[in-house]
Amino acid sequence: MKLGCCYYPEHWPEDIWAEDARRMRAMGLSLVRIGEFAWSRIEPEPGHYDWGWLDRAIETLHAAGLKVILGTPTATPPKWLVDRMPDMVAIDEQGRPRGFGSRRHYCFSHEGYRAECRRIVTVLAARYAKHPALHMWQTDNEYGCHDTVLSFSHAAAAAFRGWCAARYGTIAALNAAWGNVFWSMEYRSFAEIDPPHLTVTEANPTHWLDYRRFASDQVASFNREQVAILREAAPGTPITHNFMGFFTEFDHHDVGRDIDVATWDSYPLGFLEQFWFSQAEKRDYLRQGHPDIAAFHHDLYRGCSPKEAGSRWGVMEQQPGPVNWARFNPAPLPGMVALWTLEACAHGAELTSYFRWRQAPFAQEQMHAGLLRPDSTEAEAADEVRAAAAVLDAIGPQACAQAPAALVFSYEAAWVIGIQPQGQSFRYLELVFEAYSALRIRGLDVDIVSPDADLSAYRMVVVPTLPIVPDGFAEKLAALSCPVLLGPRSGSKTDSFCIPDGLAPGNLRDLTGVTVNRVESLRDGVSEPADGFAVTRWREDVVADHAPEITDAAARGVVYYKDGVRYCAVWPDRDLLALLVERMAHEAGVELCDLPAGIRVRRTQTHVFTFNYSGQSVSLPGFDAPLPPASWHLAPL
Amino acid sequence: MKLGCCYYPEHWPEDIWAEDARRMRAMGLSLVRIGEFAWSRIEPEPGHYDWGWLDRAIETLHAAGLKVILGTPTATPPKWLVDRMPDMVAIDEQGRPRGFGSRRHYCFSHEGYRAECRRIVTVLAARYAKHPALHMWQTDNEYGCHDTVLSFSHAAAAAFRGWCAARYGTIAALNAAWGNVFWSMEYRSFAEIDPPHLTVTEANPTHWLDYRRFASDQVASFNREQVAILREAAPGTPITHNFMGFFTEFDHHDVGRDIDVATWDSYPLGFLEQFWFSQAEKRDYLRQGHPDIAAFHHDLYRGCSPKEAGSRWGVMEQQPGPVNWARFNPAPLPGMVALWTLEACAHGAELTSYFRWRQAPFAQEQMHAGLLRPDSTEAEAADEVRAAAAVLDAIGPQACAQAPAALVFSYEAAWVIGIQPQGQSFRYLELVFEAYSALRIRGLDVDIVSPDADLSAYRMVVVPTLPIVPDGFAEKLAALSCPVLLGPRSGSKTDSFCIPDGLAPGNLRDLTGVTVNRVESLRDGVSEPADGFAVTRWREDVVADHAPEITDAAARGVVYYKDGVRYCAVWPDRDLLALLVERMAHEAGVELCDLPAGIRVRRTQTHVFTFNYSGQSVSLPGFDAPLPPASWHLAPL
Amino acid sequence: MKLGCCYYPEHWPEDIWAEDARRMRAMGLSLVRIGEFAWSRIEPEPGHYDWGWLDRAIETLHAAGLKVILGTPTATPPKWLVDRMPDMVAIDEQGRPRGFGSRRHYCFSHEGYRAECRRIVTVLAARYAKHPALHMWQTDNEYGCHDTVLSFSHAAAAAFRGWCAARYGTIAALNAAWGNVFWSMEYRSFAEIDPPHLTVTEANPTHWLDYRRFASDQVASFNREQVAILREAAPGTPITHNFMGFFTEFDHHDVGRDIDVATWDSYPLGFLEQFWFSQAEKRDYLRQGHPDIAAFHHDLYRGCSPKEAGSRWGVMEQQPGPVNWARFNPAPLPGMVALWTLEACAHGAELTSYFRWRQAPFAQEQMHAGLLRPDSTEAEAADEVRAAAAVLDAIGPQACAQAPAALVFSYEAAWVIGIQPQGQSFRYLELVFEAYSALRIRGLDVDIVSPDADLSAYRMVVVPTLPIVPDGFAEKLAALSCPVLLGPRSGSKTDSFCIPDGLAPGNLRDLTGVTVNRVESLRDGVSEPADGFAVTRWREDVVADHAPEITDAAARGVVYYKDGVRYCAVWPDRDLLALLVERMAHEAGVELCDLPAGIRVRRTQTHVFTFNYSGQSVSLPGFDAPLPPASWHLAPL
Ligand SMILES: [Zn+2]
Ligand SMILES: [Zn+2]
Ligand SMILES: [Zn+2]
Repeated sequence: MKLGCCYYPEHWPEDIWAEDARRMRAMGLSLVRIGEFAWSRIEPEPGHYDWGWLDRAIETLHAAGLKVILGTPTATPPKWLVDRMPDMVAIDEQGRPRGFGSRRHYCFSHEGYRAECRRIVTVLAARYAKHPALHMWQTDNEYGCHDTVLSFSHAAAAAFRGWCAARYGTIAALNAAWGNVFWSMEYRSFAEIDPPHLTVTEANPTHWLDYRRFASDQVASFNREQVAILREAAPGTPITHNFMGFFTEFDHHDVGRDIDVATWDSYPLGFLEQFWFSQAEKRDYLRQGHPDIAAFHHDLYRGCSPKEAGSRWGVMEQQPGPVNWARFNPAPLPGMVALWTLEACAHGAELTSYFRWRQAPFAQEQMHAGLLRPDSTEAEAADEVRAAAAVLDAIGPQACAQAPAALVFSYEAAWVIGIQPQGQSFRYLELVFEAYSALRIRGLDVDIVSPDADLSAYRMVVVPTLPIVPDGFAEKLAALSCPVLLGPRSGSKTDSFCIPDGLAPGNLRDLTGVTVNRVESLRDGVSEPADGFAVTRWREDVVADHAPEITDAAARGVVYYKDGVRYCAVWPDRDLLALLVERMAHEAGVELCDLPAGIRVRRTQTHVFTFNYSGQSVSLPGFDAPLPPASWHLAPL
Repeated sequence: MKLGCCYYPEHWPEDIWAEDARRMRAMGLSLVRIGEFAWSRIEPEPGHYDWGWLDRAIETLHAAGLKVILGTPTATPPKWLVDRMPDMVAIDEQGRPRGFGSRRHYCFSHEGYRAECRRIVTVLAARYAKHPALHMWQTDNEYGCHDTVLSFSHAAAAAFRGWCAARYGTIAALNAAWGNVFWSMEYRSFAEIDPPHLTVTEANPTHWLDYRRFASDQVASFNREQVAILREAAPGTPITHNFMGFFTEFDHHDVGRDIDVATWDSYPLGFLEQFWFSQAEKRDYLRQGHPDIAAFHHDLYRGCSPKEAGSRWGVMEQQPGPVNWARFNPAPLPGMVALWTLEACAHGAELTSYFRWRQAPFAQEQMHAGLLRPDSTEAEAADEVRAAAAVLDAIGPQACAQAPAALVFSYEAAWVIGIQPQGQSFRYLELVFEAYSALRIRGLDVDIVSPDADLSAYRMVVVPTLPIVPDGFAEKLAALSCPVLLGPRSGSKTDSFCIPDGLAPGNLRDLTGVTVNRVESLRDGVSEPADGFAVTRWREDVVADHAPEITDAAARGVVYYKDGVRYCAVWPDRDLLALLVERMAHEAGVELCDLPAGIRVRRTQTHVFTFNYSGQSVSLPGFDAPLPPASWHLAPL
Repeated sequence: MKLGCCYYPEHWPEDIWAEDARRMRAMGLSLVRIGEFAWSRIEPEPGHYDWGWLDRAIETLHAAGLKVILGTPTATPPKWLVDRMPDMVAIDEQGRPRGFGSRRHYCFSHEGYRAECRRIVTVLAARYAKHPALHMWQTDNEYGCHDTVLSFSHAAAAAFRGWCAARYGTIAALNAAWGNVFWSMEYRSFAEIDPPHLTVTEANPTHWLDYRRFASDQVASFNREQVAILREAAPGTPITHNFMGFFTEFDHHDVGRDIDVATWDSYPLGFLEQFWFSQAEKRDYLRQGHPDIAAFHHDLYRGCSPKEAGSRWGVMEQQPGPVNWARFNPAPLPGMVALWTLEACAHGAELTSYFRWRQAPFAQEQMHAGLLRPDSTEAEAADEVRAAAAVLDAIGPQACAQAPAALVFSYEAAWVIGIQPQGQSFRYLELVFEAYSALRIRGLDVDIVSPDADLSAYRMVVVPTLPIVPDGFAEKLAALSCPVLLGPRSGSKTDSFCIPDGLAPGNLRDLTGVTVNRVESLRDGVSEPADGFAVTRWREDVVADHAPEITDAAARGVVYYKDGVRYCAVWPDRDLLALLVERMAHEAGVELCDLPAGIRVRRTQTHVFTFNYSGQSVSLPGFDAPLPPASWHLAPL
């Protein structure tokens, strides 16, 4: 795995670039991401390009032995561009324009802005496609960040009408698919359709789902336009985009198919603070992050990268210290930056790039740590980067071993649950994360895959939920010989966000042998007892052609088993997930281990990595000495 | 009491209508509500009506022996209509148009939309007024649902100016009534007046009160226009409107006066989740609803129906299973649907109609249970409906007995308290509900009546609060010989939302013998002790010509008694309410009983109904066996 | 100290004015504030003035021996004025106009409205400048109340562009200062700059800081225009403005420099309810207010008044009973109104004016107590006012003694912390208030001063934090011989909101001997132990040329001491503040006392005042008897 950093030569005096480059190499870095926010410096006036500084910056890095990942600057159009086409900005759900003054101030559907993007990418590609320092392209930056996937602009409305026409052909087909007869919502033509916002009460869920599908498609096609230009200019140069964490607003599998290397931006401490974790977890992992946050995303984004192209992936931005954007921003425990780096390696990353080389003393991210402080002295992470680089040098490239477990992840599922939670504590990402965690705490390696993935190589398959079941999916599961777990709400919706004929789980009924007669959501604090676990949040009344495998204390069915396939009819708490993982592994002959709190393991083809995310030293069987907090252990297989 | 259901033939293939009708009859139903959301099917293109399907649907129902309640479709104007007059939508308090895509997307003040409503109601009435299947008309659907009473549109502003001119005659009179000299808010003409929103800080409370009165009047006049057309077309056919629960945005007594049968939509589980009930109540009554929720509304809406026409009322939508719109949506305990049905009967309902016949598999309410599941199999409630129908058949029509207790309810009071809570825990609906509950847990039947009701037949009268006292009300109370309880803030405002001359309780001063010198609100958690109860939320400093009847531990007056009339100078907690009910009943010679938690009784002229809302079996004196959870017991008087 | 009241003759029939005036004098009042909301009565139609009523009102007061504080009515422009220039209203951060219907509906940057203000102030001044009853002018009312400092109107945007051009000269200088190269935010001309709202994510903090500076300057220049007119018309007549409490949106030191007497509006119970105080404090001081609320503002606003003109200050509005605007509005304990009055005297106030003479029975503030009830009977406070007046008469004018401690307060610091909290529990006002309280509970008198104040007379100087250190400030501290405490984040920003060269604390590095390498914020509930205190909310990693004076349990530096100057590298909790106050006082030879909970003392040049804010009687050493709750004790020095 290569190490790199994000560097903004335009932020610093030119006379320190060479010294910066020298220090990067000395620290063990070989890659530098540059350029992705520099439009106002590349084109300070409309049509007047200033390449000089960027030429010299790349040359300086190259001369020091560094390669560059060059970003297209389309996440930050300059003010002159916005002033020329003021309607290029997105309109938020409340109807307000999202103006200039930060970043991502554009609507994915604005044709004028798309043309400008093609223009700037074309000239950028023309200038640097053949540069020997060029290692990779990056398109834009963090698509969707700051809630920018959805826009309710005129441009978006017009594009959505076209998208609907293409999908449905006739307005009658759309009215039928959406069920618009309900509440007289029928349209007479595609031209009558608006985005689903500012309605008096909730809009039609199919309207919303199609708007989310459309918006996701717009992200993918926006990206594809850049990819086409970059590929033509530099055939063979890989292209990446840096995804965000815990983010489901567009289908990353779709974007992943168009690029070569899926990368993501890893901020474990900020994510712990901002997401659903309990107060106890936020306390225990304050300076380490929950032990599954980074690994979950590594496995998720590896699965977004085309398998046929080698499932290439990496970390484009690695938190090197406190950040600036969470409610609270603690510092990592000493050791965590190295640990996070090696965790990426253990999951098969080809690069980890720290954000950023030097902390900027100005503007929005001035409180975001770098590898250097603003005064150019080394920050706490620098020693850890050197230590990680030494290990990486020692062990060489690490390829993933075949994981025993597959976890099926669907962006569409996240949209369906988000549009219609039915109980406000039913959160898709949390459900998937808990399933992932239940596998990882028993020492299993996991691949997180799309519903259309080939599942034949796995020994256990977990589908936390999949409301809309794609064609062929049921058959694919039926063909497996390994244990399969299907979570609640699987098969509960058609492709048009309707309840399937014959009720849920729709085309999974044969496979599972169950029919869901009724569902109910339970308020926080309601907990219905069972033997060794409890039912909370969600339960389904199921009829089955066989007795339930697991029931609750009131003898209601909880889990149904048929021919290796389990259907879990409740929100599974940690205890129930543990029980199910245990049974499936036993059936599959997969060996489990009992990891103490905060410990995780991960195997490559050649090594076993053990990580201690806890704040205490932990004694482990077979280890000479306790593993200190925030440390790792590496052993050949 | 008749049973019925809400049915949407337009949602289903025509070839299953007859079978649906047959099954309805077989289940014990005799009424079907239809048509209230079908505008886009009745008039798919402007001016082109399609009556065929509706003719056939009504015919099919009629042929099966069912009668129909036919709704006007004005809650769901089609898209073509909105596109023809885009300014017909309401403008919300933030200034945003409330667009098409769900329902109720209209402003009550828009003259163009009113004309369209008169047109569609006229043609509907013309077509079906003489139809032998027609049992009742329903106007629109749930006026005000989704916060649609208030609009801040140009149409509303213009209508409000006219309303003000009509009320005050001269702008000087309005300025004087509102106290506009305060903060230089004086107007020089009615044309200068705007709605009271988007002001820098709170607008004048009289401005707000008049805006609420105006908005309520607009609802009433909107309804009255439809009533006039329907009455002319079908003299003698009763007209209803289906009210919502826990909803005070317009004066239901006003609308009630114009219709024949007040109906409401009863969703006990959703209401428990969404309103102010404690965590313990939400847990204990999770699948039953608080035992007073349905009864409270039954008694409230019976009181909204013209007494001279027989106080006709019913339940137009009865929850038959989990709903889709609360934060959490549990399923009723087995038995509750039958229990709720009989509770309505016990309060004198003439109909209970389940919402809906069959769960729709599409659109916004696809997670709302019906009597049938989407696959046409019977849902859990079906057996309970049959059981209830059998009981109803057996006991025949039930007429209300004279209730011993009257509870005075005022929509204007809700507006006054909402506009000026003075302490954020002073909630009108909660205060009234607690008073109602205090009477019901001692076994008393209650009439909830408007301030202008005749009170002479009651043996106890409770006025939880009545800030604005109508002319003649004090005299009416003075003429009573039964115990009267007046709650805090009664008489605290004039008709112009001012403090009365001589201070509160204004024209109740002679009756009560008290003057309120000062009020204070107490933050949550502050509790000032007294003997057997505590003072929380609100207390008043009162001077009286007599010693207080009840004081707190610091000897401050809490309740004042004079000639049968009590004035309670604090927010009454449950213990104090219990004490006051006990005293009043004793004085009135009204017998009380001690009901275990979750048990309620209700008498008609011929029967005593006992209901167990608790989740446990309960032993009751005089009963052979414990009453199981979610069950009822019926005995002749 | 003089006593007065706020009086609105326009609210009352003219025939009671004389009796009101007589009663004011009899109660011990000598000053009456009038006129500040009366524009619609002074100028009922554009250009048509009605002076008669105001002439007669002032004459009536004068005849009774009262002097008037005459307010300019610019906080309440009439409707006709708003209708003539609808764009005079402020635009809120969400882009909505803030309309007519309450008060303060104007944008400080609107030139048309400024001209109207100059006109009305000119005619008011011309009419009353020579009136013998005129004691003082008041400009406008509570600048900034209801979030009115910031406006995002076209007028504000245009004025901001001019302000930027004046500050920076060239757009290149602005781009450099703001760091606009970050995210391509560079402008090509001042005309391209917009206000920093509705950006996709956070705007540049320097953009925000300059917008706040600009907005503060607009308040000051708006006020200065009125001051200039009033001074020219009535040279020698003092001018005041009444500031609000816990309010930092504009720089009160700037406005204070332009007026003669800084006054403020003191509502201790409302402030306790609305601000950050703990549940226990809100309970214990429910009817008294936290014992430092009033004193803190007295000392703060005295420090806003020009020292060369005698640091004249007063209380323009004193809460006399329950108010109407807090979430909950309890009544003061008997005695509190007198106590608050004497607390003001003890801090050197020249006047305390009660808001208001008589409670208004109408409009927005009808639930706000007065000295009289709406029916003209005396409210609870009246006796306390008489008691206070008697004491004031007896002791005569009280001049402040030299305070031993100075607390440095910076409005700019509040903006910096507010714009970039970095941890959401880091609140500037709370930090300063806690430091103030730590001094006061040890019996110290405190001056709260601007960073540019002369500090040479103090024996202890506390700077809770000062992110941007003005030129000369470090040198001024270096020249002191007394103990100095600098709190966390001091010196952490340049004047352009950047991290200083060489890191924080910037130009305080020599003075303190420390460099801040890294900061972190800690979530609520995280508490890292130390000996006698704990680290919460914020901690800094410091390198120093000397060992820390105080460390935590993990041996990390907490406080650094060098040559009398301490740098505190964490959020100081109450225990740590107590320890530091103890050490500094010991070093300075300042005597401390141990005050029981709720007791405060304050010395003038001739007297010691002791106040009991607790709800219990308290025994104090040297006192004959316990001090009852809500009472005070006065002794000559
Ligand atoms: Zn990033
Ligand atoms: Zn309904
Ligand atoms: Zn005020």
